[in-house]
Amino acid sequence: MLRRVLCTMLLMGALPSLAEVSQGHISVVLLGATGDLAKKYLWQGLFQLYIDQVSSGHSFTFHGAALTDLEPGQKLMFDVLKKLACPPDESPNRCAVLKDQFLKLSQYHQLKTAENYAALNREIEMLLHQEGLKEAGRIFYFSVPPFAYTDIARHINSSCRPPLGAWLRVVLEKPFGHDLESAQQMAAELTSFFREEEMYRVDHYLGKQAVAHILPFRDQNRQFLDPIWNRHHVERVEIVLKEIVDAKGRTSFYEQYGVIRDVLQNHLTEALMFLTMELPGNLSKAEEVLQCKLQALQSLRGLEKQSVVVGQYQAYASHVQDELQKGQDYVSTTPTFAGVLVHSDSLRWEGVPFLLTSGKALDERVGYVRVLFKNRAYCTQSEALRDAGHSQCKPKQIVFYIGHGALNTPAVLVSRNLFRPIMPKSSWREVVRQPDLHIFGQMLSEYYVYSPVKERDAYSVLISNIYHGRKDFFITTENLLASWAFWTPLLNSISHQAPRLYPGGVENQHFLDFEMVSGELAFTVAEPVELLNPGGPMPSDYKTIQSKFRQSPLVSAWSKVLISQLASDVEKTASRAVARSGQFHLALSGGSSPVALFQRLARHHYGFPWRHTHLWLVDERCVPLTDPESNFFSLHNHLLQNIRVPYFNVHPMPVHLRQRLCVEEDGGTELYAKEIMALVANASFDLVLLGVGTDGHTASLFPHSEDGLEGAQAVVLTESPVKPHQRMSLSLPLINKAQQVFVLVMGKGKHDITTQISRVGREPRKWPISGVNPSSGQLVWYVDYEALLG
Amino acid sequence: MLRRVLCTMLLMGALPSLAEVSQGHISVVLLGATGDLAKKYLWQGLFQLYIDQVSSGHSFTFHGAALTDLEPGQKLMFDVLKKLACPPDESPNRCAVLKDQFLKLSQYHQLKTAENYAALNREIEMLLHQEGLKEAGRIFYFSVPPFAYTDIARHINSSCRPPLGAWLRVVLEKPFGHDLESAQQMAAELTSFFREEEMYRVDHYLGKQAVAHILPFRDQNRQFLDPIWNRHHVERVEIVLKEIVDAKGRTSFYEQYGVIRDVLQNHLTEALMFLTMELPGNLSKAEEVLQCKLQALQSLRGLEKQSVVVGQYQAYASHVQDELQKGQDYVSTTPTFAGVLVHSDSLRWEGVPFLLTSGKALDERVGYVRVLFKNRAYCTQSEALRDAGHSQCKPKQIVFYIGHGALNTPAVLVSRNLFRPIMPKSSWREVVRQPDLHIFGQMLSEYYVYSPVKERDAYSVLISNIYHGRKDFFITTENLLASWAFWTPLLNSISHQAPRLYPGGVENQHFLDFEMVSGELAFTVAEPVELLNPGGPMPSDYKTIQSKFRQSPLVSAWSKVLISQLASDVEKTASRAVARSGQFHLALSGGSSPVALFQRLARHHYGFPWRHTHLWLVDERCVPLTDPESNFFSLHNHLLQNIRVPYFNVHPMPVHLRQRLCVEEDGGTELYAKEIMALVANASFDLVLLGVGTDGHTASLFPHSEDGLEGAQAVVLTESPVKPHQRMSLSLPLINKAQQVFVLVMGKGKHDITTQISRVGREPRKWPISGVNPSSGQLVWYVDYEALLG
Repeated sequence: MLRRVLCTMLLMGALPSLAEVSQGHISVVLLGATGDLAKKYLWQGLFQLYIDQVSSGHSFTFHGAALTDLEPGQKLMFDVLKKLACPPDESPNRCAVLKDQFLKLSQYHQLKTAENYAALNREIEMLLHQEGLKEAGRIFYFSVPPFAYTDIARHINSSCRPPLGAWLRVVLEKPFGHDLESAQQMAAELTSFFREEEMYRVDHYLGKQAVAHILPFRDQNRQFLDPIWNRHHVERVEIVLKEIVDAKGRTSFYEQYGVIRDVLQNHLTEALMFLTMELPGNLSKAEEVLQCKLQALQSLRGLEKQSVVVGQYQAYASHVQDELQKGQDYVSTTPTFAGVLVHSDSLRWEGVPFLLTSGKALDERVGYVRVLFKNRAYCTQSEALRDAGHSQCKPKQIVFYIGHGALNTPAVLVSRNLFRPIMPKSSWREVVRQPDLHIFGQMLSEYYVYSPVKERDAYSVLISNIYHGRKDFFITTENLLASWAFWTPLLNSISHQAPRLYPGGVENQHFLDFEMVSGELAFTVAEPVELLNPGGPMPSDYKTIQSKFRQSPLVSAWSKVLISQLASDVEKTASRAVARSGQFHLALSGGSSPVALFQRLARHHYGFPWRHTHLWLVDERCVPLTDPESNFFSLHNHLLQNIRVPYFNVHPMPVHLRQRLCVEEDGGTELYAKEIMALVANASFDLVLLGVGTDGHTASLFPHSEDGLEGAQAVVLTESPVKPHQRMSLSLPLINKAQQVFVLVMGKGKHDITTQISRVGREPRKWPISGVNPSSGQLVWYVDYEALLG
Repeated sequence: MLRRVLCTMLLMGALPSLAEVSQGHISVVLLGATGDLAKKYLWQGLFQLYIDQVSSGHSFTFHGAALTDLEPGQKLMFDVLKKLACPPDESPNRCAVLKDQFLKLSQYHQLKTAENYAALNREIEMLLHQEGLKEAGRIFYFSVPPFAYTDIARHINSSCRPPLGAWLRVVLEKPFGHDLESAQQMAAELTSFFREEEMYRVDHYLGKQAVAHILPFRDQNRQFLDPIWNRHHVERVEIVLKEIVDAKGRTSFYEQYGVIRDVLQNHLTEALMFLTMELPGNLSKAEEVLQCKLQALQSLRGLEKQSVVVGQYQAYASHVQDELQKGQDYVSTTPTFAGVLVHSDSLRWEGVPFLLTSGKALDERVGYVRVLFKNRAYCTQSEALRDAGHSQCKPKQIVFYIGHGALNTPAVLVSRNLFRPIMPKSSWREVVRQPDLHIFGQMLSEYYVYSPVKERDAYSVLISNIYHGRKDFFITTENLLASWAFWTPLLNSISHQAPRLYPGGVENQHFLDFEMVSGELAFTVAEPVELLNPGGPMPSDYKTIQSKFRQSPLVSAWSKVLISQLASDVEKTASRAVARSGQFHLALSGGSSPVALFQRLARHHYGFPWRHTHLWLVDERCVPLTDPESNFFSLHNHLLQNIRVPYFNVHPMPVHLRQRLCVEEDGGTELYAKEIMALVANASFDLVLLGVGTDGHTASLFPHSEDGLEGAQAVVLTESPVKPHQRMSLSLPLINKAQQVFVLVMGKGKHDITTQISRVGREPRKWPISGVNPSSGQLVWYVDYEALLG
């Protein structure tokens, strides 16, 4: 059959020379050949590949496969093939001939048993042998549900591998797992059958022309983008896929996945990576591209529950009940809408908000990636009194318009006051139409607008990339797992969260608008239930209780309020100290409670006199400072990195001298004591922040030990009952010399010890915390309701 | 006369009781009573004071004074007084009576000689004695040129001080000097006559109602502003005073001062302080307000030549030539337009651009302070498909509209999507008019708009504040000098810079638009002279020469280009090292040349792998690390503060152990050597950056000494011929173990040594730099054209 086609082509004259044919033969096997995806996109993509590559020197055969028996399968498949469309840019005559050839090169196979696979392999080998063709490679396209992957993979691996010298490419369709664990498991299975370079995981977004052009655009416009593609110039980025359709008819899938798994974890994350990754020197090196992408993914800041808003269109519940035969009382928390605020910790992007949004049952169908730049210009003449021109004071943006929406074509838009972009003329052309269309806050005439010369379906782009072995258009195992590692904690944290219900369609109005508020996301309009009582009383939760605890002032509140009160009090103390002496000496404890304080100080206290603050440690574990267990390490991560204390004012405890930990003769305690004496007037800290352990320890002064409770030593080595045992600590006498001591106690776990120490006198040997009693300073207790009331 | 007035008032019934009268008497002396300012504003302000305070319990007399003889002076002054207007909110009858009283309470004095002042004093005392009044205080308003201040001040101090228990207030009008030095001198003179609390320096902007309301607005709206009044929410701030008039008729003043001294140093800086200062707990404490203001002023980042754009309207030259009798060849560089980019280094405002702009001969007369917020919202529904409402996606701004312009009234504007501000109902009222007026990119209807219930002239506001002793509405000596300290370096650096000429009026078009480009300002449109040759060849200055120097690669260019090339090469080296080993060990030299490199790295290299970089010192001076002479201190200021290297990765040289400097037995050199061995594989730095001294020294290895040239010691103590003599340095053998060594040589001063070492062989005892020759690494020379070519 193949020979006959070759003959036909020779007769037509538009064909490969024999030398070209000697590039070898490629067998494409499409598993799930009669499924929806195959019908809709894949066969068309393969036909396009054939049209494009018929003169490449490769010869092809196409093998559709499914579980269906041979005859009905054949019929089903050829019904699809007969309907294949000719691309609009192809001459009808040539296309008709090529289509005829394509049909002849295509064949249906039932692939069910091991024997079926072995038979397919024999057929391929025989054909090649008959035609005297060298084998270039085999493509197996898995257009089947993931549960079928393992069996198919096993069969291919054992029966269908091409001979040495020819390549194997297996193409996989999402979902690639449901969370990190399932993705790891799936990846491990696949890896037992295929080498990494053999696997092509499809994210069809990477085949969308506007998305696929992000990296080339950045590369070709380096001269314009280099100075502005960073946090100093980019105001924000929006990556959006809005749909009008709902999940009706797909709820058996959707109810398990939801919008974040369906769209954000894959499509929108991929687009995000193309924007944020460092640009490799040479885009044609897939290896480098993938490496830069992985790094970008790894430098995303972890998401918290507060990084997201989720919604569910009102009719979803009934769709689920109908389709999944659930009762009226079945409640789904599956989000059909999500907005997520993503931050990168890279120096380039630090602080720039990336908003990822997708949803079903919205007002329009549209997808775009929008980079909005800060306005850096001041226009001296008022707008009313000047020529329009392209003023530097108008918005500046670059939009990769994926499709649909008002433009209804893929496009790249660049505000005219930015630069005229360099675009490859062969594939993108400038378009001037609908100049008055208002889009992203500007008239279309205010942009340079480019759309593809040939609009191409994502799958045909991807199939071409599989043929060319362009791995950078696909998801590697590493990238996949990094993406799941990023998304899974968020998915877990919101799995029981009730999404906001929204009416669907244009009725949504403002209802799904959301805002960034101190690094968190929130819907702009409050829930209607709250609107019923506008201006009503505020919950009294926000008050702090002021009272006494162990004869000293007590501040108590719910933890969040407590921390904000404590942070304010620390700042007040700091400002007073700086006003008095020009310096503020603050000694901080380790543990988890202060972390919330550190974060609060870093994010909300802009007036804090950090430049004049010296930071000391109350205690330290005998581990290197770079050990995650080190108190200093935690202080560094949660506070130091986010503020600007002069290097000279930071005083970690010297637990690691001469490359060893807390060896007495290295004199670490004396060294620290001397540093304190040298810098802190009278060795009296302005403020010491302490915690309390469940055993009553404070600093690293533990019960049933004399160490550090009395005597002249300012800094001591102690022994903790829990690991790491060795500790360094300020002594009780030194702590008691402080001007102010704040003790922070939080959490239910501290309730028992809180009750205990509220009742006892000064017994530091039993409860070291009870020995804290500043001789001339002030002691204040900050105890949250959970610790105080249980 | 006073008694007569009191009687009249008693008859009217709207008057002080005797108890109130017992508040005491206030004498107001207006020096320069017949001058322009007095005619235009001051008498009217004093009349307003009288109207407002007639029932306050204080009694008043008003003394106009000038150099003019008594009779003509009297006539001149009463001609002014007779024209005083009644405020529109005053009943004509009451006003007529009050004006009559005011005239009777006012008197003219010739004040020229010491005797004149003594006589005035006697008159005041006599009057008080006759009327049996207690003296509350005396106000001396200096509406005279500054050269007259000293004499007047001396006379007042020696002859006109009120008795103990009564206050003295002297009111001074700008200019308060011409630069820091002259301001200091003037302040010192005044301080020899008056106490700080006696001096009221007027900046009439502080009396503009919209400016005066900035602090109360921030105070009363704390609940809304607290979360957003910071760098996370504020996009930029514009402080603008545009004028239509030019300098014609005033060039004798203007040619000496220019727009920066005339408007920016005082009016706009004051408005800036009100915006940026931390808000004291209690606004009524003038002391605290002034303290916060001073701090805000001190935390402004120093201005450079590049922080400003300046212009001069075209006709200015001829105005100067005409009025100052200058020849045709006289060239003035006095700016009549300036745009300045100001940054604050406070944590609250770090990175937020404050644009201060003022100019003459512009398109409109308007003054405003505009705070533009970042858009924090994402609007899910497209604008076309939703109710207008006040969408969170529209601009958000707060504008303190000083006056004139499209609104033609002082006003406070708050975008409706921000919050409805709390405004004092007694003094500001909401206005709804001209809803379609387009202002600052929004319709007026999209703002809450408030204007004053009573529009008050700035001088009447200020005179009232003098009466109330509100020092926070005036400029203290400290604040004045801090402001001059901020502006003077800029003024000096641009004193010979040719301003851009602009046509004036609406013809200016885009010509004065300017932009922020990496922390600098530049006009958006290039000079027309450059436009003559668009697309022409670029100056070849931007090329770097690549060649050989001492058998090693040489990179040479003008200094700016050289530094950017070096920075790129450092980053490339860093990325390669991190890719290879996960770490980058960089050893940096001190001196001035690397500072430009540090700044370049901090501002342009966002992809630099700082998190994986270890910073070491090549050499150090034996001074504490906090000493400005310390190499580490410079590294800290110019690089460390602006990037994020983990604390653990920073390795200053231990020159200061046990509170003493470079004592051999403290073992600092061994300590540093051990740290290097422990962390740097094979003690081979990835990159060492060196400089060259004019004597051929490099690192701290000096000619005519063996120290550090050979042997096993990795780190050595050495002796410099210049102070501070003691140094610590990496040894030549250690340097030569590095993978890469870059030597940076810049400036004309280095030309001789560059020539010298280009000719000699390896003679490290004579020229230590000649001993640099990495055994297995690479050496690259970065020499700028000045050093290379002289």
